[in-house]
Amino acid sequence: MIVSVIGLGLIGGSIALDLKQRGFASKIIGVDNNPMHAHQAKKLGLTDEIQDLKTAVESSHLVILAIPVNACIKAMPQIMDMVDQQIVTDLGSTKEQLIESIADHPKRKQYVPAHPMAGTEFSGPKAAHAGLFDGKCSIICNPEDSDKDAVNMITDMFHTLQMRCVYMDAEVHDRQAAYVSHLSHISAFALSITVLQKEKKDKHIFELASGGFDSTVRLAKSSAEMWTPIFNQNKKNLSKVLQKYIDTLQEFKDKIEADDLAGVDNLIHEANDISRVLDEKERNEAETIKKAKKKRRA
Amino acid sequence: MIVSVIGLGLIGGSIALDLKQRGFASKIIGVDNNPMHAHQAKKLGLTDEIQDLKTAVESSHLVILAIPVNACIKAMPQIMDMVDQQIVTDLGSTKEQLIESIADHPKRKQYVPAHPMAGTEFSGPKAAHAGLFDGKCSIICNPEDSDKDAVNMITDMFHTLQMRCVYMDAEVHDRQAAYVSHLSHISAFALSITVLQKEKKDKHIFELASGGFDSTVRLAKSSAEMWTPIFNQNKKNLSKVLQKYIDTLQEFKDKIEADDLAGVDNLIHEANDISRVLDEKERNEAETIKKAKKKRRA
Repeated sequence: MIVSVIGLGLIGGSIALDLKQRGFASKIIGVDNNPMHAHQAKKLGLTDEIQDLKTAVESSHLVILAIPVNACIKAMPQIMDMVDQQIVTDLGSTKEQLIESIADHPKRKQYVPAHPMAGTEFSGPKAAHAGLFDGKCSIICNPEDSDKDAVNMITDMFHTLQMRCVYMDAEVHDRQAAYVSHLSHISAFALSITVLQKEKKDKHIFELASGGFDSTVRLAKSSAEMWTPIFNQNKKNLSKVLQKYIDTLQEFKDKIEADDLAGVDNLIHEANDISRVLDEKERNEAETIKKAKKKRRA
Repeated sequence: MIVSVIGLGLIGGSIALDLKQRGFASKIIGVDNNPMHAHQAKKLGLTDEIQDLKTAVESSHLVILAIPVNACIKAMPQIMDMVDQQIVTDLGSTKEQLIESIADHPKRKQYVPAHPMAGTEFSGPKAAHAGLFDGKCSIICNPEDSDKDAVNMITDMFHTLQMRCVYMDAEVHDRQAAYVSHLSHISAFALSITVLQKEKKDKHIFELASGGFDSTVRLAKSSAEMWTPIFNQNKKNLSKVLQKYIDTLQEFKDKIEADDLAGVDNLIHEANDISRVLDEKERNEAETIKKAKKKRRA
């Protein structure tokens, strides 16, 4: 099948690579507003050709939007207007507002809202790489509002990417994403700013930084172009989640200041339970890749 | 030389391995209050023998303390009382209180306070591994208060571990460590708690967690036994640092709630400057390993 990918950055470029290499797409048509990105993507072999949006949509069976969520909300109605039989999906990190924005579109059932839970702190076509999605989970939202065939096609697509699919309500998705994805980014951005501000006075402060710091702050490299619109669209949930995070930090601060060692111990023991979650995640990812490989061989 | 390592966990076990393998120590004597840990360490080949504290100190040229900072502050005066010509060092994450606690000891000059900036979220002898310190930075505090020969020996030891040495005042160390090490741990603990509390109502919330979450929360596996005493000893600095971190998070929250997109953009751009720091760190680590290898060959 012919697949158009709108937006040839980390996510769009990586999905293009795997869909072509793994035989899901016979041809990838790339679209990007940024001519340099389009040129790079073609040169890097992420796409077979570059087209304008209209030609791309008209020439393909599947249209994948992989652009920042504010750009997506603008482009989506236009694209749905161009569509004949094509299936459309997007890979954005927020879902409620986008779905709401085309709720009444006559072609709504040809659209499948999705969010593959994979990424890195880098962006642009050069950050794209094969295998980015392997073993991870992809969310498909409100499947009851899309044609069954369309949902099946997108599910197949994610299975080709060696992902597990989880189906959920867009509202639940946005709330949960605020906790396990958006909050991580803000905690890293804020950590980075806190230490960089100190660096202005203590020039050698980063001498002491080790692997733990790197790991915790890694996401602070992420781009404003992508993340500001996500935070904006998910503000209702993020506001609550940030308050809870701040309250927990305040609890640490209060107990540390009060020499409440047993209290700090209890908080750390509570936090340690994350081992259970991360271990289970690792097992799930290994299992997902195993299943996907078995299915592809069959 | 014969080296005693007091505390055979991640740090003590790893340093024992590399000092023996790289020829700095002819024999490693291990000491651990926990008989199971002592047994494991011997079985894993981290130490040549296990002794009680007094025998170990008396039989060695160098004594390395690798126990939690609260245990260290208790053991240090005892150990200094046992010392004849031996050099003593510790590897703890806080330095001011420990140094203060033996400031007037007649053998003070034989003690070199140190802090190798390396570790993982795991603990115990089984977490120990060769190469843990390679390329990282080690802090030596207040070198003017130790014998020159002692400082040289500890510097050589860290060079054997393929580390860079940075010399600084204990007060500066503790302040900087609060920013680049202790804060990272609290931010991860608090992130873990925030999401785990949500899991009680939203059972499948971790379905959405991807590599970014794992990275940011990784340190939340770290042990209370090690970290509660660090937070307690460094409470003066941590209190200020946590307030700054909370203020920065609050700034994000306020700007997001106010739809101040330019303001959020600015914060993210400010945070992005961490790329410069992390890239420089990576170059430094590679350079340190290269230099250390060259020196060992010479």
